[in-house]
Amino acid sequence: MTADSLQIGRQGAPQAALMAALRDRAAEVETCLDSLLPLEAGLEARLIEAMRYAALGGGKRLRGFLVMEVAGLFKVAPACAARVAASVEMLHAYSLIHDDLPAMDDDDLRRGKPSTHRAFDEATAILAGDALQARAFEVLAEEDTHSDPAARCELVCALGLAAGARGMAGGQMIDMQAEGRALTLGEVSRLHALKTGRLIQYAAEAGAILGRAPWQVRTQIAAYGRDIGAAFQIADDVLDTVGTAEQIGKTAGKDQAAGKATVVSILGIARAEAQARMLCEQSKAHLDHFGPEADRLRALASWVVSRQS
Amino acid sequence: MTADSLQIGRQGAPQAALMAALRDRAAEVETCLDSLLPLEAGLEARLIEAMRYAALGGGKRLRGFLVMEVAGLFKVAPACAARVAASVEMLHAYSLIHDDLPAMDDDDLRRGKPSTHRAFDEATAILAGDALQARAFEVLAEEDTHSDPAARCELVCALGLAAGARGMAGGQMIDMQAEGRALTLGEVSRLHALKTGRLIQYAAEAGAILGRAPWQVRTQIAAYGRDIGAAFQIADDVLDTVGTAEQIGKTAGKDQAAGKATVVSILGIARAEAQARMLCEQSKAHLDHFGPEADRLRALASWVVSRQS
Repeated sequence: MTADSLQIGRQGAPQAALMAALRDRAAEVETCLDSLLPLEAGLEARLIEAMRYAALGGGKRLRGFLVMEVAGLFKVAPACAARVAASVEMLHAYSLIHDDLPAMDDDDLRRGKPSTHRAFDEATAILAGDALQARAFEVLAEEDTHSDPAARCELVCALGLAAGARGMAGGQMIDMQAEGRALTLGEVSRLHALKTGRLIQYAAEAGAILGRAPWQVRTQIAAYGRDIGAAFQIADDVLDTVGTAEQIGKTAGKDQAAGKATVVSILGIARAEAQARMLCEQSKAHLDHFGPEADRLRALASWVVSRQS
Repeated sequence: MTADSLQIGRQGAPQAALMAALRDRAAEVETCLDSLLPLEAGLEARLIEAMRYAALGGGKRLRGFLVMEVAGLFKVAPACAARVAASVEMLHAYSLIHDDLPAMDDDDLRRGKPSTHRAFDEATAILAGDALQARAFEVLAEEDTHSDPAARCELVCALGLAAGARGMAGGQMIDMQAEGRALTLGEVSRLHALKTGRLIQYAAEAGAILGRAPWQVRTQIAAYGRDIGAAFQIADDVLDTVGTAEQIGKTAGKDQAAGKATVVSILGIARAEAQARMLCEQSKAHLDHFGPEADRLRALASWVVSRQS
């Protein structure tokens, strides 16, 4: 066995363990989502079907994984972490439903199947998004999520900040205004920090809130989440440029077609990839005072920039 | 002075006091909303402008009034009650933005001015509603709202239930399916209980949660809110049938034109009005163990069914 193959072996093992963990966590999140979104009888059943259509059965569950992995560092009960993971995935699912609407990105395909307004109708899709957002907050505040109501309030506040006008919704607003207008690299970075970064950062931070981590540790976990979120978005832009719809589960080349500036269109693919790798290393540095228990979070950072879908 | 004019005098005084209180509380809610939705620089400024356009400067503030009046029964600090009042008005404003969208009720007029998607555009309107909902939850969980985080969590849970699939959003889903389909009186009542009733009930209940009222008292306050909400909706249907756009600040006769069943179309105006008066009396009965300090809430019940706009 050569030094080279040893090297590959050392890198390959954590990646394989990560893939298995991603699958396991996704299954836990799925089970929890299923129980938190029970089907109901009555004329509103269609709404709950649409919520379940959008929230269940798909996605990488990156945000849910982050909640559960970080919570694991602090020995949080998995059942509590799974509820917060399900909550952030509901919030994420709502944002995808609304982003895909005709008045927004007008996308027919999501996670390899028809987007919610195509599978149902526009009104149902808007309402399903609305109701998923309400449920996401409600779940956080319920007693089963944490024994300390102060922790539950912190989760609600942090999610509100990540999802609202100074977070995800604000980022989508910038994105809508970016069509056919030349954004600078700084503006594009800020767009992504708000649109996708804040919620990914929140997911990591939520695990630390659940674990009642000291403020300084919570700040480092948040910084890890922020950098991994930025790296994830650049990798997404690269995939959108070079990937196929089959690989990425949604319409490819959309941003380019809409004349939207992306990190890739400004920097080119090579420099964008280098930027993503830099962010990946930077995110790992925030985990320096953790031992091997954070290895999967480190592996996640590498996967985020190397993934093919 | 005759017995008759005395009678009118006795009825008139609480109504006049109520009108003054409604104006005062609305001004307090307005000030609080203004401070909770600060303008920002940056490309997302347009989103915050749209949020403020929809949330500020209009409406009867019935929900906010209920929060503040009920909280007053329990000597809650007005600044705390005003935050919860502002939060429920944000939630209400978001629901109006989304209800008015082309894919929903497609309404150009709201509170006597262009609806948000007409004043801005559809994408901005969807996002403004989304961000207002997030902010409504965030405000509830912030420390300034109540010193006890358990109370703040109860507020978040109650709002989540009132706003989500088993509340307001579920009611709107039923409403969308009701077009051109004959609903029974029971179905119409349930539609309204979900679509408007739950949030009005929540507003009353929120005042009791802020006041840490014993469970039994909280239940009675909630029942008052439920009945007043049902009466309000029937009165709204009557106004929609007989009122003008100028009176009601939105397009009149919409439900009729859309072939939607309402309590009025099923029962006729006279029986619908009788039903509203019955609910008004029933709502007051839930306040029986309160003294004169609840007189304004009693007057509110009467006003809700007698108002002309």
